[in-house]
Amino acid sequence: MSLPTVLISHTPPDEIRERIGEVLQGAAELVAFPEVAEARRVDVLQTCRAVLTYHPFRDLGIDSLVQLKNCGLMQCLTAGIDYLPLSEIPDHILVAYNAGAFAEPMAEHVVAMALAGSKRLRIEHGLMKDGEFNQFVPTKKIAGATCGILGFGETGREVARLVQALGMKVEAINRSGKTNNPIDFIGTLDDLERVLENADVLVVTLALTKQTDRLLGAEQFRQMKSDAVLVNVARGEIADEDDLYAHLLTHPRFTACLEAWWIEPVRHGKFEMKHSFLDLPNVIASPHNSGMTDGALITAAERGAQNVLRFLRGEEPRFIATDDVKMG
Amino acid sequence: MSLPTVLISHTPPDEIRERIGEVLQGAAELVAFPEVAEARRVDVLQTCRAVLTYHPFRDLGIDSLVQLKNCGLMQCLTAGIDYLPLSEIPDHILVAYNAGAFAEPMAEHVVAMALAGSKRLRIEHGLMKDGEFNQFVPTKKIAGATCGILGFGETGREVARLVQALGMKVEAINRSGKTNNPIDFIGTLDDLERVLENADVLVVTLALTKQTDRLLGAEQFRQMKSDAVLVNVARGEIADEDDLYAHLLTHPRFTACLEAWWIEPVRHGKFEMKHSFLDLPNVIASPHNSGMTDGALITAAERGAQNVLRFLRGEEPRFIATDDVKMG
Repeated sequence: MSLPTVLISHTPPDEIRERIGEVLQGAAELVAFPEVAEARRVDVLQTCRAVLTYHPFRDLGIDSLVQLKNCGLMQCLTAGIDYLPLSEIPDHILVAYNAGAFAEPMAEHVVAMALAGSKRLRIEHGLMKDGEFNQFVPTKKIAGATCGILGFGETGREVARLVQALGMKVEAINRSGKTNNPIDFIGTLDDLERVLENADVLVVTLALTKQTDRLLGAEQFRQMKSDAVLVNVARGEIADEDDLYAHLLTHPRFTACLEAWWIEPVRHGKFEMKHSFLDLPNVIASPHNSGMTDGALITAAERGAQNVLRFLRGEEPRFIATDDVKMG
Repeated sequence: MSLPTVLISHTPPDEIRERIGEVLQGAAELVAFPEVAEARRVDVLQTCRAVLTYHPFRDLGIDSLVQLKNCGLMQCLTAGIDYLPLSEIPDHILVAYNAGAFAEPMAEHVVAMALAGSKRLRIEHGLMKDGEFNQFVPTKKIAGATCGILGFGETGREVARLVQALGMKVEAINRSGKTNNPIDFIGTLDDLERVLENADVLVVTLALTKQTDRLLGAEQFRQMKSDAVLVNVARGEIADEDDLYAHLLTHPRFTACLEAWWIEPVRHGKFEMKHSFLDLPNVIASPHNSGMTDGALITAAERGAQNVLRFLRGEEPRFIATDDVKMG
């Protein structure tokens, strides 16, 4: 009996192809779409059981999607898939996002930003350039401080593990208000005010949904400590852009660490801001690269392939996108 | 029987005075020198058993030191005392430095700098300002990477504890080449090359001595990985200033996190550099403030007072300065 075909929509680097191949060995034949001869493409599209992809529309062409008659799972390799027009994908295909694919590197990046903000690294470097040497201006102590985490999925839980190792308390928000993780408080968005008030560091790892779009505005920033450190590694839209900029101007001891942006290249084809966040001393910026450590793409591809393997074995695939879950 | 007098050379803030008082309660009477009436000062100097001080020469006056006839211990409140002319202190007085006084906040600062460097926070922020959005340029993974630690005293060991909690391996250098701490390698300066070669992050917490003065020069930097992150929280002099600047220019992926400087205010009355380190994108600078978290001065004073208490009880005081140990 021939093996089912799993289609990769692009040509992956050798290391990634090998890792995916190892996971699917004996369970599927792996085919990279760009390597399929023109004449065989329709056939491959019609027979493949699953697709591994970053961007199916761009790679396969939007008109090809109707050909995916035998395909049951479109496994995205990114954690957040809110940039994909899911409604264009035929109804019989489940779309899975790669939840937690970059949880470990993202959590390290969060800790880097949270500590850089807490220790005033950017502010004091800038002041030193201006001739100020503030040896006795206190910085924030991490041990014993509280880290609020909005969104307690794979990334949020990994952040919790790391900051707890550094001695922080953790208060988190998720959908259920429940967790098995040993943290100091877990609640739902109904408990947002409490978490905002207690947080020395507030980490946003929420999915972007109707409920979380502009969740953090002027009122929420006012509820936070005046010297809190906000770290957004989820989606820019979760914080109101105008309100955040205004708050940073009026609260120079408040720091925003921005890794996710409102208009950014992968999702929008360009990087744009309404305000000059990058020029503020109390902003630490990174180009949405928190997942991008050496080897991280390999780990992510492996996780995606494991979910495809579940599906091929007749098990329930994980992290299936629903209308309101757009980012894991 | 009246209690012995412990003299504080300056007027401490109330919180610090209270904490020292709690430690010495029942064992000594605490006197702040500026509060002693002019007429009684010689008497207080002649009778006190110990002095707690940041700067005895400035506070008491260099001519007063000969009056300290009954004094057996001068307990400095700073960890590094290489700025004090120890030879001016009468021979019968032991001088103790406050080893590890700021170990916990300094170690947090080290982790902040090491991670900020590893995750390219300053470099990428700068590039974003120039319009580059490097979402796919890899950053360093912390888990599994190796942290070299030169100087494995209180601060070095606390750094080890934190970076191990983040999943790093630790290779350290101390005088004995021995430690009870569970790290991956311990050696002496004879093993420097090995530690330099293996380090993804290299943390300098060494005392400044004849052996460590300019320990790190062009040859040592060349032995390090080209994308290593150097963190110096000890003394600027341990790295050769010219060689470090030259290495940073020729190795843009090498990052130096500088918290200790060659010419800096507390030791030299001014902040000066021979090269414009602050303008390099691969430098992260802080104004020797790593110990300065909220409450850190209180903890440091408490530790100093505990060493005085040991002395008053007839126990061996810790961290006595010798000619070659100038910084703990």
